Amino acid sequence: MMDKAVIISTGDELTTGRVIDTNSATIADRLSTVGIEVTAVLKVGDDRELLRWALDRASDISDLIVGTGGLGPTADDLTAEVVGQFLGCRLLQDEHVAQSLKKRFEARGLTWSDNNLKQARFPEGSVIIPNPTGTAPGFRVSVGPHRTLVWLSGVPQEMLTMLSATVMPWLADLRSGAEQISACSFKIYGLTESRIDDMLKSISLGQGAKLSFRAHFPDLTLRLTVRGKGERIAKFERLKSEIKKILGSYIYAEGEETLEEVVGRLLLAKHQTLALAESCTGGYISHRITRVAGSSVYFHGGVVSYSNEAKIRYLGVKAQTLQEFGAVSEQAALEMSAGVRDRLASSIGIGVTGIAGPSGGTAEKPVGTVWISIAGNNLHEARRFQFHGDRERVIVGTSQAALDWLRKSLRAP
Amino acid sequence: MMDKAVIISTGDELTTGRVIDTNSATIADRLSTVGIEVTAVLKVGDDRELLRWALDRASDISDLIVGTGGLGPTADDLTAEVVGQFLGCRLLQDEHVAQSLKKRFEARGLTWSDNNLKQARFPEGSVIIPNPTGTAPGFRVSVGPHRTLVWLSGVPQEMLTMLSATVMPWLADLRSGAEQISACSFKIYGLTESRIDDMLKSISLGQGAKLSFRAHFPDLTLRLTVRGKGERIAKFERLKSEIKKILGSYIYAEGEETLEEVVGRLLLAKHQTLALAESCTGGYISHRITRVAGSSVYFHGGVVSYSNEAKIRYLGVKAQTLQEFGAVSEQAALEMSAGVRDRLASSIGIGVTGIAGPSGGTAEKPVGTVWISIAGNNLHEARRFQFHGDRERVIVGTSQAALDWLRKSLRAP
Repeated sequence: MMDKAVIISTGDELTTGRVIDTNSATIADRLSTVGIEVTAVLKVGDDRELLRWALDRASDISDLIVGTGGLGPTADDLTAEVVGQFLGCRLLQDEHVAQSLKKRFEARGLTWSDNNLKQARFPEGSVIIPNPTGTAPGFRVSVGPHRTLVWLSGVPQEMLTMLSATVMPWLADLRSGAEQISACSFKIYGLTESRIDDMLKSISLGQGAKLSFRAHFPDLTLRLTVRGKGERIAKFERLKSEIKKILGSYIYAEGEETLEEVVGRLLLAKHQTLALAESCTGGYISHRITRVAGSSVYFHGGVVSYSNEAKIRYLGVKAQTLQEFGAVSEQAALEMSAGVRDRLASSIGIGVTGIAGPSGGTAEKPVGTVWISIAGNNLHEARRFQFHGDRERVIVGTSQAALDWLRKSLRAP
Repeated sequence: MMDKAVIISTGDELTTGRVIDTNSATIADRLSTVGIEVTAVLKVGDDRELLRWALDRASDISDLIVGTGGLGPTADDLTAEVVGQFLGCRLLQDEHVAQSLKKRFEARGLTWSDNNLKQARFPEGSVIIPNPTGTAPGFRVSVGPHRTLVWLSGVPQEMLTMLSATVMPWLADLRSGAEQISACSFKIYGLTESRIDDMLKSISLGQGAKLSFRAHFPDLTLRLTVRGKGERIAKFERLKSEIKKILGSYIYAEGEETLEEVVGRLLLAKHQTLALAESCTGGYISHRITRVAGSSVYFHGGVVSYSNEAKIRYLGVKAQTLQEFGAVSEQAALEMSAGVRDRLASSIGIGVTGIAGPSGGTAEKPVGTVWISIAGNNLHEARRFQFHGDRERVIVGTSQAALDWLRKSLRAP
């Protein structure tokens, strides 16, 4: 039936704590989309006995084993050899793979040595899984009549390509008659988990549908999954549109789009341009805006006004404003947003000033106090926010609040 | 002897791919410092049978089991119950823990319900492991005469506190007569792994000493570990100083200090102040500088000059320079660094201009071409760099090159 999987991750670096294993989470996430449940993940170092132990143990509790790592040419790459022993079969050299390895070496002007042929030997009966972005291919092989073993590269980017291009289509085909999962996710800003729970109480999920949260500061992601055969699709679409109707503009993105990508898309669509005056965020909002490719079209630039000198000279904030109200004030924020907009000839300016901490707080303006102002797009307004946590959280939280306010103001008619 | 450990991580979120498990890497890293090797990591969901399976399997190949998760009050928190079955013993309520749970609820004005007492029940014979930053304590208990089981909270911050405050001192004491490990790490910029290998060839490591690399862009970390009894310490110190002598100023930090922290420390020590003019890095260098607490003392601010307007108006770059040589040129970089330094009245100015990609490259100035200039500290110089990879890598790589050059210039006599 192939509905329970065990993932085996190998490599000394995984059991010494020097590298965090992300492959197993990626694989589990993808397997879940075709309704395969991961019962356990086993991580072992590059050691014959432990790898054999992992293969034996994985067989106890799964009908699909997905392994990563140990496919290379060096002495500590043990996968093919140990899998051969586990299956009780020979290793055979695949001539097609051997030839393409040699060609790859030639093309790059590298010296060929025959130990590279190790990467062309696979357990008898294997189907080769190509590795278009790396050297060593993977393989898929039957383990007795009811179980399959799939082995992929341990390099995350190579693993992902092999999984997406070869393994997932095979699994989707194999399970086309079985239950599958439709899934989507919504990125949300401005609501807590419990508030969302409350708002969605009226939705009847019924059998097979599930809502789950993932909080990964500053993002909160709500995920809808519906498990079933063909009939699940109509239900999935209905639930998806009910959620969108209830949460409305609190949802800033569906899927993987980032808030800065959404903002960039809206600025382009509305033919608006942006300039930033940042104090407590120290350039972090500029960085988020400019890490989007093509942002130079709508982003004119910014000022990181850490000193009063910079606020006065570059933004035209009045010395009197700073004296009378302080650098962290509504008035300073309003002058910063209008000042940077006018000086950089953009249609919208944003000003941000606050106390990121850990020092600099007072009773009246504690650490985490932030004023954000938008000038342009029919607005000239400042809002006060109170963030909590360490310096990093205040900076990141402020950037999220500023970008989300900008997003909402761009969506307004 | 207690020298082989298995880590068990529990929680549905770990086997559905929704959360990446960092606890096991943290634990493995800490155990290695007292010479305990992790033979395997087992991750299972919140399921009685699978948890029991993991406990049985862990016992096959270890004399220390360290588990995390499933200590809370809800129905899917199964740890104490399943461990009790595994050991064949009763669960007993710890009155001291029960009282402090009630007090904790009172202090926070929360309504007490008796299902919280679940967190005060432990397998008979357990030693309680306090959880000062959370609710549910952990426990340590013997498994037969030769094996010990330790269980901690699954919340990373709580786990780390419990591990550091209670488990590691106990293990260090237990293993004081056994082999231990002395370790240190060096962060390096400007050398490849193979070049470092070459440079360190002359060092004789001998038995028990090991060098390993971890590349985590843009950081390259070299780690030295020496295993042995008391006599290892002299050898460790000797090797450490040999490495420092050979790699010299390529080492920018020992331990966990970041490059921006090192730069901040040097600016303070030399009574220098900094201003930044960033084009292709879009505020990322400013962000790195300002995420260090206290940076407002030495950082005056910056300009993100994405448009020519910003370069001319804010930095005093000549329109003729931009016309004649282009915005990505030695001349523009030189005028940017001096311009921002003078206008923000700092002692050092840095100017960065380049092509982050993916578009905008030409044959003469391909994507990844970057000019960095430093003005101040007896310098007014620009250097050309060629970075490779996607937009993110060009931005991050540029920030590292600029900060490292600044570091070296501040160390010069």
